[in-house]
Amino acid sequence: MAKEKKVEQITDMEVDFAQWYTDICRKAELVEYASVKGFTILRPYGYAIWENMQQIMDAEFKKTGHENVAMPVLIPESLLKKEGELVNGFAPEVAWVTMGGSEQLEERLAFRPTSETMFCDHWSRVLHSYRELPMLYNQWCSVIRWEKTTRPFLRSREFWWQEGHTIHETAEEAQAETEQQLNCYADFFEKVLAIPVVRGRKTDKEKFAGAEATYTVECMMKDHKALQGATSHYFGDKFSRAYDVTFTGRDNKLQYPFQTSWGSTTRMIGAVIMAHGDNNGLVLPPPIAPIQVIILPVAMHKSGVLEAARALRERLQNAGLRVKVDESDNSMGWKCAQYEMKGVPLRVEIGPRDIEAGQCVLVRRSDGGKTVIRLEELEQAAKEQLALVQQGLYEKAKLNLDEHCYAAFSVEEAKKLQEEKGGFIKTMWCGDVACEQKMKEEAGMSSRCIPFKQEHLGDVCACCGRPAEKMIFWGVAY
Amino acid sequence: MAKEKKVEQITDMEVDFAQWYTDICRKAELVEYASVKGFTILRPYGYAIWENMQQIMDAEFKKTGHENVAMPVLIPESLLKKEGELVNGFAPEVAWVTMGGSEQLEERLAFRPTSETMFCDHWSRVLHSYRELPMLYNQWCSVIRWEKTTRPFLRSREFWWQEGHTIHETAEEAQAETEQQLNCYADFFEKVLAIPVVRGRKTDKEKFAGAEATYTVECMMKDHKALQGATSHYFGDKFSRAYDVTFTGRDNKLQYPFQTSWGSTTRMIGAVIMAHGDNNGLVLPPPIAPIQVIILPVAMHKSGVLEAARALRERLQNAGLRVKVDESDNSMGWKCAQYEMKGVPLRVEIGPRDIEAGQCVLVRRSDGGKTVIRLEELEQAAKEQLALVQQGLYEKAKLNLDEHCYAAFSVEEAKKLQEEKGGFIKTMWCGDVACEQKMKEEAGMSSRCIPFKQEHLGDVCACCGRPAEKMIFWGVAY
Repeated sequence: MAKEKKVEQITDMEVDFAQWYTDICRKAELVEYASVKGFTILRPYGYAIWENMQQIMDAEFKKTGHENVAMPVLIPESLLKKEGELVNGFAPEVAWVTMGGSEQLEERLAFRPTSETMFCDHWSRVLHSYRELPMLYNQWCSVIRWEKTTRPFLRSREFWWQEGHTIHETAEEAQAETEQQLNCYADFFEKVLAIPVVRGRKTDKEKFAGAEATYTVECMMKDHKALQGATSHYFGDKFSRAYDVTFTGRDNKLQYPFQTSWGSTTRMIGAVIMAHGDNNGLVLPPPIAPIQVIILPVAMHKSGVLEAARALRERLQNAGLRVKVDESDNSMGWKCAQYEMKGVPLRVEIGPRDIEAGQCVLVRRSDGGKTVIRLEELEQAAKEQLALVQQGLYEKAKLNLDEHCYAAFSVEEAKKLQEEKGGFIKTMWCGDVACEQKMKEEAGMSSRCIPFKQEHLGDVCACCGRPAEKMIFWGVAY
Repeated sequence: MAKEKKVEQITDMEVDFAQWYTDICRKAELVEYASVKGFTILRPYGYAIWENMQQIMDAEFKKTGHENVAMPVLIPESLLKKEGELVNGFAPEVAWVTMGGSEQLEERLAFRPTSETMFCDHWSRVLHSYRELPMLYNQWCSVIRWEKTTRPFLRSREFWWQEGHTIHETAEEAQAETEQQLNCYADFFEKVLAIPVVRGRKTDKEKFAGAEATYTVECMMKDHKALQGATSHYFGDKFSRAYDVTFTGRDNKLQYPFQTSWGSTTRMIGAVIMAHGDNNGLVLPPPIAPIQVIILPVAMHKSGVLEAARALRERLQNAGLRVKVDESDNSMGWKCAQYEMKGVPLRVEIGPRDIEAGQCVLVRRSDGGKTVIRLEELEQAAKEQLALVQQGLYEKAKLNLDEHCYAAFSVEEAKKLQEEKGGFIKTMWCGDVACEQKMKEEAGMSSRCIPFKQEHLGDVCACCGRPAEKMIFWGVAY
């Protein structure tokens, strides 16, 4: 084992969580920095994870009647400016196209930071009657926001996402859509990504620019910081009015439709890294793993071993799994470390003695659990082990979340809890933005959400002592 | 029938082909113009066609080991300029980002017109050894080319495409890749889009900026104009040298890899419209049709009809088809016209008398062919009819191609044939760009390709009379 090619070490998460995170992004070959500052490249392995996420989410969106479209990437400045709050929220982060070929443009064009304006502009021209409602659209694309500091997946000048945009005949329908899509995200996080979430509403200070209400799923990372997973917005008819989107209603009068939008991004890959990863690298939930099972032939050059390994691959592929055999010359030690780094959920080892005994070894990436199984039970056993990985990841993440929610009754106490333990600090809150500001300035925490599942911790605001009816979650967020 | 809602008429193709084309694009709800000049919106129905194309092509690319990635959309000017021919070819069409937020950028950034430069830049940083070769990458994205005149799908300032980019250890491997991908496109056109193609090589004048060789699949539209379907390029090691992409070879020396790229775009939707459409609207080949079978209940409000229609949908869906029942209040006449406009390949009609007789009616969009079938044979019959549609479309398009290829032996004759008959004019050609220029100026035709399947029409160039060994195709192209 002395001479073997070494898998590069990564920083331990306990030593430097931020460096550990970046190390995984690079060493697991998920992303690479581009030559344009603040931009990243999604490499094949990183993109394959994103593709798996897309496929699962897209199917869910379509089940509830959503259709994909493609809107232009450039938005005329005048169009962007029609809704004041939105443009104020995004203007500082917009990249501007000012030249087309050698010609200076008369009006500069924004690289979309988000596409509400384009959808509204389109609807203003194609919507006529209530019979055409709802219009349930979605698009998969990249957007640009000119951030000052960037980190792979978490904050990048260009990122990939889906943005759903819908219009409805009534406010109730639009509100129901907003909720439905938030629950769709929550399910995706919990069932697919194995990350438990807190569902709730954003405060006015934290909501999306121009929205009447923003709902969010908030997750907790292994360093006990919070990460906003995905958001769903209700706009009322504010944009419809600004962009003159109208339809003839059932009463034969001109009306404004009610609007929603909802988005999730490649930052979900960052969430997976920080929710499940360990000091050996990435740990992927099976549903999104590009390789679900890696088969490593032991004593590969002995007669029959490779054939046996390939036969296992064939069987597992036929069972619907994504499988690979590593037939390279690298040592077993190197291979094990390599696929651990890449987070492959299940490893199968098979060598001459296993073949003789009619067995093989299964090893779970998530907790190192090993089982020796009879070859004839391979398909079922592999699926069971993958289910165990998924369940184990969720339970561990749930424990992390549950163990790091603390109630506090003053800003000082909240601050102390955050500094000593981290996580979500829950307090009662009067609803005043001044108190939110105080918590930010004195305890370094932003409001994460007002959870749908409320607890009655007391009757007064932890920040000002005035009467308070709502419980709110605070945290240090990515 | 007098009071029924009318499906809007489209211009006959014989009256005004260009208007007929635009009418289909709009009336079949494929695209809509955006408020940004020269940009279009892919509406749900148009985008669904593109998604079906993507799915089929993407699976083919993956079968041959290609992996998807995502490269940044913005390219620094200095990076774009490293390869002279490429930048000269694209510079007049580049959209430039000059501002990020409120800050003027030190270097302007190009919205990608194509991504060879980004891939090379990435490879220059991640490639080390011949063991890592080939790298077989692809990305699905949009690009911008600042065209003066635009038409939906055919020429648009932003369009959606896939761009494959690969590097290889040897020139032979890269050439084989270029050919393989061209054949992949040809198969896609012929077997999926039902459009026969001429495979061949572009002249130096018409090849991709910076490429050593460009291969193409050329199709013929119903107006006998040519359309370039997709292209595949061989670069040798020219870009590798310009961007300093190197690897340690088997001989332990530093070497430059050999490169290819290949692309196909949403203009394929334009090709489908103009290859198969008729005066009733779009005609879609079944593999890419968002709705493959439309079921129209006759006398819908009579007892049992809707239930029967839904039962047929259920059965056809279970058989793996994309099916819809139109339960709206619109008249049968309107519905028939509407789904003809949208090009749905197969219509199923079922009414009270059919139910009583245990039958239903199948109508092919492509040629209006009707069959009455027993309900129990529905699945098989529907699949047979769809196969007939596909075959019929291909045969008709093949006939159109075959009947509009003419041999000519002088520029004058070529010009006359083009004016009187249109189509591909084939001549012998000496290989001189001056002759190509002459054909362009005097006969208004560009060279389409030097077909792989050569014919010996004679021994001298049709343009200059000097010795010629190659047969070339000329045409008026979209």
